[in-house]
Amino acid sequence: MSATPPLKNDRFIRALLRQPVDRTPVWIMRQAGRYLPEYRAIREQAGDFMTLCSTPDLACEVTLQPLRRFDLDAAILFSDILTIPDAMGLGLYFEEGEGPKFKYPVQSAADIAKLAAPDPHDELSYVIDAVSLIRKELNGDVPLIGFSGSPWTLATYMVEGGSSKTFSKIKALLFEDPKSAHQLLSVLADSVASYLNAQIAAGAQAVMIFDSWGGALSTPHYKEFSLFYMQQIVDQLTREVDGVKIPVTLFTKGGGLWLKDIAATDCDAVGLDWSVDIGLAREQIGDKVALQGNMDPAVMGTTPEAIQTEATRILASYGHGSGHVFNLGHGITPNINPENVKALVDCVHEESAKYHL
Amino acid sequence: MSATPPLKNDRFIRALLRQPVDRTPVWIMRQAGRYLPEYRAIREQAGDFMTLCSTPDLACEVTLQPLRRFDLDAAILFSDILTIPDAMGLGLYFEEGEGPKFKYPVQSAADIAKLAAPDPHDELSYVIDAVSLIRKELNGDVPLIGFSGSPWTLATYMVEGGSSKTFSKIKALLFEDPKSAHQLLSVLADSVASYLNAQIAAGAQAVMIFDSWGGALSTPHYKEFSLFYMQQIVDQLTREVDGVKIPVTLFTKGGGLWLKDIAATDCDAVGLDWSVDIGLAREQIGDKVALQGNMDPAVMGTTPEAIQTEATRILASYGHGSGHVFNLGHGITPNINPENVKALVDCVHEESAKYHL
Repeated sequence: MSATPPLKNDRFIRALLRQPVDRTPVWIMRQAGRYLPEYRAIREQAGDFMTLCSTPDLACEVTLQPLRRFDLDAAILFSDILTIPDAMGLGLYFEEGEGPKFKYPVQSAADIAKLAAPDPHDELSYVIDAVSLIRKELNGDVPLIGFSGSPWTLATYMVEGGSSKTFSKIKALLFEDPKSAHQLLSVLADSVASYLNAQIAAGAQAVMIFDSWGGALSTPHYKEFSLFYMQQIVDQLTREVDGVKIPVTLFTKGGGLWLKDIAATDCDAVGLDWSVDIGLAREQIGDKVALQGNMDPAVMGTTPEAIQTEATRILASYGHGSGHVFNLGHGITPNINPENVKALVDCVHEESAKYHL
Repeated sequence: MSATPPLKNDRFIRALLRQPVDRTPVWIMRQAGRYLPEYRAIREQAGDFMTLCSTPDLACEVTLQPLRRFDLDAAILFSDILTIPDAMGLGLYFEEGEGPKFKYPVQSAADIAKLAAPDPHDELSYVIDAVSLIRKELNGDVPLIGFSGSPWTLATYMVEGGSSKTFSKIKALLFEDPKSAHQLLSVLADSVASYLNAQIAAGAQAVMIFDSWGGALSTPHYKEFSLFYMQQIVDQLTREVDGVKIPVTLFTKGGGLWLKDIAATDCDAVGLDWSVDIGLAREQIGDKVALQGNMDPAVMGTTPEAIQTEATRILASYGHGSGHVFNLGHGITPNINPENVKALVDCVHEESAKYHL
């Protein structure tokens, strides 16, 4: 990447590394998404969601859309968390209003034994190409985040065949055949590590692992079946390219009880959902990691005034100094007025200045 | 209640009061429910769910059904958490497979201003009559638990008009018009207090408040809009009848971050969902309150062996001495084999003996 320009705005990377910044950086989970009319236009043109993900030009375009509107401090690769199981041959598809599904879910120990880590430069080359293209198009304006689902989260979809409320199938596997569960999670951890390393080699300047469903587990199961495999990935990741650090963020939604355990993986930052008090979280783990979050996404559906009040409260709760990347505690929902996103981003920059004097 | 016989099995009450017991008591949230064929038969006969709730003879019968099969240490009133808003005139109804709905949801500050606490002996007399009848029919075998939804949880259904994933309407109320939200929660707290006190007067020997959706809130919102109103109720409850204590249990699903705050309300026991490590919870608050929980309900869909392993782990995690009421971390689901419930109940009694020597 020596030919690429240096970062014009490196607040996001610096905050993840807990280095001094002038303002608290802000980006928004699912910032490229359905709340933007220009996204809906491209999505309609593409026909289906997977075409959008698997066509680098389109993935690049929707990644850049929110940056043209808002003063965001990072771009995030537009993709889906389920690209890895799809590349393993499970046949990812989307039914309108139903969430993701797999044509060939994992139904037995024999199914698990057949799984192999996909080659990121073969079955997943469309993602790696998108990363290269986006990095080039960003032209150093802001850093590019690469990402993956966590092994546990990927496994839930693979075994349940789609979204689930009770996770009864995957949990039955944990309780009845933990050995097969470990086999599944192990191949997923290797897959995620090589996938994220390929994204880093292609230009991702930070990576994030989304453990959307870790919070559905008991404490011992979380440690054994989710966190253990995120640790395996952290251990395998490229943490520096040409002398430049590549920070890694772990985010377990509903993981507020396990912040110390997550921070102990040697990740650079921990994502917080909105249930967590960010000030208390900083007391617990702020000497080890940066914190990313943690506004309730429901605020985005209200007024600019309510958004400003809540953002101001969270900035004050974190307090003085670097180490905070402002974000929502979960993805932005489709029904949001883009003007409210502008209100949030501008408020974070304005209100945070005093915490970085 | 002086004419009623003394309790033959008082393990449950004693454990809630942290008095010595011979075995860890066990009951199961939704123990009277669809996993029992005899329940499904009565439910079909009744025609609809609300007829079952509002006919004391039928509510009594289904309350007693699981006690005939399993060696449970408590009975819980068969009812719905939404009886109070229904009695307020919101028109509760159930659509097959869709969860509860209200015909007349709360849509404005004017709607809130019109709400009044229902008289438990008028609009809710069917519940109070069921409590009296069940208490009589139990004949002192085991104690009877009365219950209510928490003000916050009731408010979510009343404002959303039914179940919700994002709680966007009720949360908009909290952020945009907190004064009206407080007015709504205040009338609900008074309603729940008089409702539970009427259940206690009619024979309930312990009461529990289900805060099913407190975990959807940020920490400051949880304290301001959910816990504050449970505190108001605890302060108003009848805590003793004829010299006999009436223990009160508070259960916030997803409330693991706030255990110390919940225990500080002066409740007798705190319910734990399965994400919480019960051993750590005991270290945190076990000197103040008893703990109820906390097995992952998903285990019930597996094998008797897996159930025994997990129940044994939880008993060991709590450790020696009284103050633990075994339960699931959430209600039992409809797809469970009743034999698995027997395996759980018997295992808890057998395996726990050594912790009470």
